[in-house]
Amino acid sequence: MTSETDVQKSADGSTPGTPTTPPPARPAFGRVTGPAGPGDTALATALQKVLDGHWADTRRTTREAMTPEVLSPIGLSMEEHREHVLGQLSRLAETGIPKLGFRKEDGGAGDAGGVLTAFEMLGHGDLSLMVKAGVQWGLFGGAISNLGNEEVRRKYLPDAISLDLLGCFAMTELGQGSDVQNLETTATFDRETGEFVVDTPTPSAEKAYIGNAARDGRLAAVFAQLITPDKDGEPDNHGVHCLLVPIRDSDGNDLPGVTTTDHGHKGGLLGVDNGRIRFDKVRVPREALLDRFGAVDADGLYSSSIESDGARFFTMLGTLIRGRVSVGAASGAAARTALALAVRYGLVRRQFDHPETGKGIPLLEYREHQRRLMPRVARAYAYACAQNAIIAELDEFEKFPDYFDDRRRREMEAHAAGIKAAVTGWANETISEARLACGGAGYMAENRLTTMRADADVFSTFEGDNVVLMQLVGKELLTAYASEFGDMDQVETVTFALNMVADVVQEKTRASTLWQKLVDSVTDREHTDLLDRGNQLELLVDRSEHLVETVARRLRKAQGEDGSEAFKVFNSAQDHILAAGRAHMDSWVFEQFVEAIEACEDEDAREMLGMLADVFVLDVVDRDKGWFLEHNRLTTERTKAATAALNRLCTKLAGKARTLVDAFAIPEFVFDVPMLNDGGVDAPVEAAAGAEGLG
Amino acid sequence: MTSETDVQKSADGSTPGTPTTPPPARPAFGRVTGPAGPGDTALATALQKVLDGHWADTRRTTREAMTPEVLSPIGLSMEEHREHVLGQLSRLAETGIPKLGFRKEDGGAGDAGGVLTAFEMLGHGDLSLMVKAGVQWGLFGGAISNLGNEEVRRKYLPDAISLDLLGCFAMTELGQGSDVQNLETTATFDRETGEFVVDTPTPSAEKAYIGNAARDGRLAAVFAQLITPDKDGEPDNHGVHCLLVPIRDSDGNDLPGVTTTDHGHKGGLLGVDNGRIRFDKVRVPREALLDRFGAVDADGLYSSSIESDGARFFTMLGTLIRGRVSVGAASGAAARTALALAVRYGLVRRQFDHPETGKGIPLLEYREHQRRLMPRVARAYAYACAQNAIIAELDEFEKFPDYFDDRRRREMEAHAAGIKAAVTGWANETISEARLACGGAGYMAENRLTTMRADADVFSTFEGDNVVLMQLVGKELLTAYASEFGDMDQVETVTFALNMVADVVQEKTRASTLWQKLVDSVTDREHTDLLDRGNQLELLVDRSEHLVETVARRLRKAQGEDGSEAFKVFNSAQDHILAAGRAHMDSWVFEQFVEAIEACEDEDAREMLGMLADVFVLDVVDRDKGWFLEHNRLTTERTKAATAALNRLCTKLAGKARTLVDAFAIPEFVFDVPMLNDGGVDAPVEAAAGAEGLG
Repeated sequence: MTSETDVQKSADGSTPGTPTTPPPARPAFGRVTGPAGPGDTALATALQKVLDGHWADTRRTTREAMTPEVLSPIGLSMEEHREHVLGQLSRLAETGIPKLGFRKEDGGAGDAGGVLTAFEMLGHGDLSLMVKAGVQWGLFGGAISNLGNEEVRRKYLPDAISLDLLGCFAMTELGQGSDVQNLETTATFDRETGEFVVDTPTPSAEKAYIGNAARDGRLAAVFAQLITPDKDGEPDNHGVHCLLVPIRDSDGNDLPGVTTTDHGHKGGLLGVDNGRIRFDKVRVPREALLDRFGAVDADGLYSSSIESDGARFFTMLGTLIRGRVSVGAASGAAARTALALAVRYGLVRRQFDHPETGKGIPLLEYREHQRRLMPRVARAYAYACAQNAIIAELDEFEKFPDYFDDRRRREMEAHAAGIKAAVTGWANETISEARLACGGAGYMAENRLTTMRADADVFSTFEGDNVVLMQLVGKELLTAYASEFGDMDQVETVTFALNMVADVVQEKTRASTLWQKLVDSVTDREHTDLLDRGNQLELLVDRSEHLVETVARRLRKAQGEDGSEAFKVFNSAQDHILAAGRAHMDSWVFEQFVEAIEACEDEDAREMLGMLADVFVLDVVDRDKGWFLEHNRLTTERTKAATAALNRLCTKLAGKARTLVDAFAIPEFVFDVPMLNDGGVDAPVEAAAGAEGLG
Repeated sequence: MTSETDVQKSADGSTPGTPTTPPPARPAFGRVTGPAGPGDTALATALQKVLDGHWADTRRTTREAMTPEVLSPIGLSMEEHREHVLGQLSRLAETGIPKLGFRKEDGGAGDAGGVLTAFEMLGHGDLSLMVKAGVQWGLFGGAISNLGNEEVRRKYLPDAISLDLLGCFAMTELGQGSDVQNLETTATFDRETGEFVVDTPTPSAEKAYIGNAARDGRLAAVFAQLITPDKDGEPDNHGVHCLLVPIRDSDGNDLPGVTTTDHGHKGGLLGVDNGRIRFDKVRVPREALLDRFGAVDADGLYSSSIESDGARFFTMLGTLIRGRVSVGAASGAAARTALALAVRYGLVRRQFDHPETGKGIPLLEYREHQRRLMPRVARAYAYACAQNAIIAELDEFEKFPDYFDDRRRREMEAHAAGIKAAVTGWANETISEARLACGGAGYMAENRLTTMRADADVFSTFEGDNVVLMQLVGKELLTAYASEFGDMDQVETVTFALNMVADVVQEKTRASTLWQKLVDSVTDREHTDLLDRGNQLELLVDRSEHLVETVARRLRKAQGEDGSEAFKVFNSAQDHILAAGRAHMDSWVFEQFVEAIEACEDEDAREMLGMLADVFVLDVVDRDKGWFLEHNRLTTERTKAATAALNRLCTKLAGKARTLVDAFAIPEFVFDVPMLNDGGVDAPVEAAAGAEGLG
């Protein structure tokens, strides 16, 4: 068997010498069979401060404003649920929260971070409400705000904000989800009448899965290929642009030429009315074009401040970044809710009697139960901190775009995509695990977990499919800030990647000063161990870099090949590119977590967070030990020791589990569920004060 | 990069010499962009024959009897869905299929294999129907059939079979799910009146999650602690027994002393009316006791043919074995359905244009998509074969119990538990992956995947929680057929395990003659490779054995310790015990798969199945490479080569994907879903005959 000391062995397996800094003393913990009531309040408050982040005030006011009505109702029909959510949306509009996100000149508060934080917290309640809010204010309102000129913003935004005008963000088509650049819907300028003709030329061009399209939407922000006549009258395609197209009259009837269809029942989110929209040569005035980045004058002449079609397209897609950040944040909140429910249940539900005491053993006292939940609790902390970081970055970008050179902006975009993919995928697994950890009770809708799982499921697909987004992270690492990227199609990307130098990547992933500081402090590499923070960062960054470097080498093969061969090379490396993207997100997320820990001033909290960080890394090592061994990053002694240390730390953390989830600061009414109160669970048997204490 | 040859390197990394048998030539495959219509019919038929197994005739007649009405309806309210399923249940009763499973003397056909196979196929449709059928005929009917005397069987079974009497299987309690031996409900004999008094003494003793309890059930098979007065009039507890207790009158009202509650909405299975039942000193006549294994005479004297309480209890639980086998089989069928939907979609849905042809690339042509789906297709084949094997074993047991010594019976029980845990957990992950692989379309209820996922979710929990069942497999491996086990509580198990000798385990897991034959044929161990069948078996069996041996060594520490310390030792090894159980199930499942392949007479099919077997093993190696490296079972060169070979084989199999899922022989109406027909997908562009052919 392995011991704690083994974890501290160096990578080459030699016995450790005297470390430069002695490992921090770890607190001793009581057993899980301590109190199942509220945990250590002081510690929970200190931890909460770290998780609350920059927008702690917004969190507080939102938390106070939340009532049980924001929870997902059970057993309503689809139409009833839609009606209920629309009502909740109105209440949300009245709070003034949605306004936060719009520019001051548009009647908002210019507080992107605030609105993202507030919407994140809707993830503790009914995700239908969160999604409908995101569709209305984030996507529909966001498109007008980001792409419209002053006149159009003045005309529509007040009503969009107040909810007098509900709208759609009509981008996805039945045949084109991820490949937005090749949407089929057309908007052709008719010089005779000065109008655009919006059309759905093929069945696959029908707009699909569009929120607000089945029932409530009146106006749609429609993405279409913008076509103007050139000087010979031939069609000239300027790429995808966005136009505002009315789709319903005030009685809710489709307007002439528009056909909407209700998607009906989905896997979840029954409160959101998703539908399809088809356009049969619908005419809209020239002013319908949101022309901030591309305008058409009365003569049909096209002009844009951005020359390249590709660059313009990616600029216009900027609207999606907020959406991605928002979706990641809300699904993180949902996962924390699920974990808090499962942890609380694990502390009061007992199974099998203890051989000595004869009392039932709380589920969370079992090793397997600890391993199922505690690494997820650790990751929940890390993701929450990373999510705070990306929200802060986006907020700064929106406030001071000039601070952002192309490189910083692209990095932000890649991380927004990456964290959305990482968190939403993980959240669904986590909610599933939480539901399983609650047994039969977990399957009853009244205990919330199944609805949460069903609703959050599609978060892995919308706002960018997770595989496509993670691939985007991998590609971005490869092309490392090349400004040409915007114009490059898949083949060119491959070809371009060949010239990529590892140095650039290195520069990028190692840019953080914190990282440098921590790594510099490690004076003797041989004596570092898996519980050393600098070594942990090094381990994760090194994995990510190695994956990028080796994938670049593979792609180099495609150089000079024709398109077919180049695609083959790219495709056979696809799993490798995705692995690079995932590894990078692990290291980036961990870096954000460590930064948040460093900034924490409460000593007990910092210690506890340090253990969570250890669990994060040991869990990565445990799950990917094949890689670390294959690439001689760790010896088999060390990987075995890592697993043993992970087990021990999970047991320790389980002793503080209630405190750890209390720090999520989820409104208490969320936990008013039968499984935490009914006859299936026992009151805590050993509720002596201090049994769960730190000392 | 690695090449196919690397896979053939020996474990010590030396260059291979001349293998005794040359590796079989592998067929060349066309590209995925071949026909998306029906695959290779002859090959599909040959493969289907392997999957259909012993009860091919039952499969055929059931398949022919299935109509679109068995599919899960969309958008019904809970009450409407319950009504619909009850109607379908009546139709099912009329087919005579449920009768198959009962003994001939009880009006059945004594064909356990037949009924299990037929119920498995309901897994292609509405799982609510499958579960309600399982509750009514499998559990309720099964309890009467297995535990009742001739009189009681004659009295109730005809109505239970015909559906004139709907019933419940009331075992689980709110506070006791997995620890059935410690149920709290009591049935106390009152000598004065000659009745049993059935009582729910505490809130946690309430029967919970019981199918048919909320609405349709009239009579419940209630599991309770059987208490009789001893000669001094003191209560004497004989352990858990089963009694038939009427719960509702013919108008559906609760009978006096009985309180039923509706669980209402669940995460899925809305067509099944689960509820709670509480008994307030309900009196039933002495004949209500199902007394085959334990009877009480008019004087209140208890007698049983099985002396030990523990052994008697496990005998009575025999009813659960069929349930476990049935649940595993149906969720396997659901997973195959999900895979077939996702594969078909992956062949017709295109994303991004090919750089050369300009045509959209089918999803299944992408490496990542292949890696998501093809290893699951391979495992679906393996599980189907293993499921056929356990059904055949159970069928033989029910027909010829005398053929089964204690050891064989216990092995069957462990495998029934293990396959239930393995398949249901995997099925849920697989349905999730299939839904993700279908993007936005996958989330629309009309395309069936989300309902399937929601319904199958609880299969991981009911009929034995998967963690508890897998632990049971691990413990069974440890205690290896000790007849004492039945009486041992957790501490004793631990203590007993200390005396366990590795030889016994070895004998057990290596019992198969096929395995012996294949391993014997490998004359020179050094020259074996990862594509050699004997070596593959050896690899999987060796992993399982090593895990069992090392866990036994750990448990030895508990020897002589008190209960508290012994539990600690057991608990800290829990993840290890589970890993042993899972590894054993992998090797057992693989063995069943290989036996089925050996029995296949069609050469093309055998070749294809061989590739699926390779993918099964390479996927195990890829996912668990950390273990194989840590324990020096494989070198890093070999694990890397295994991953590369897995990638290549997945691409090859993707070229035959349609054929592979056609062989599942799922009724075609299941595929009449919008996403396979609407504008989002293209007709196959290169449907030239033979493009997908074997040659």
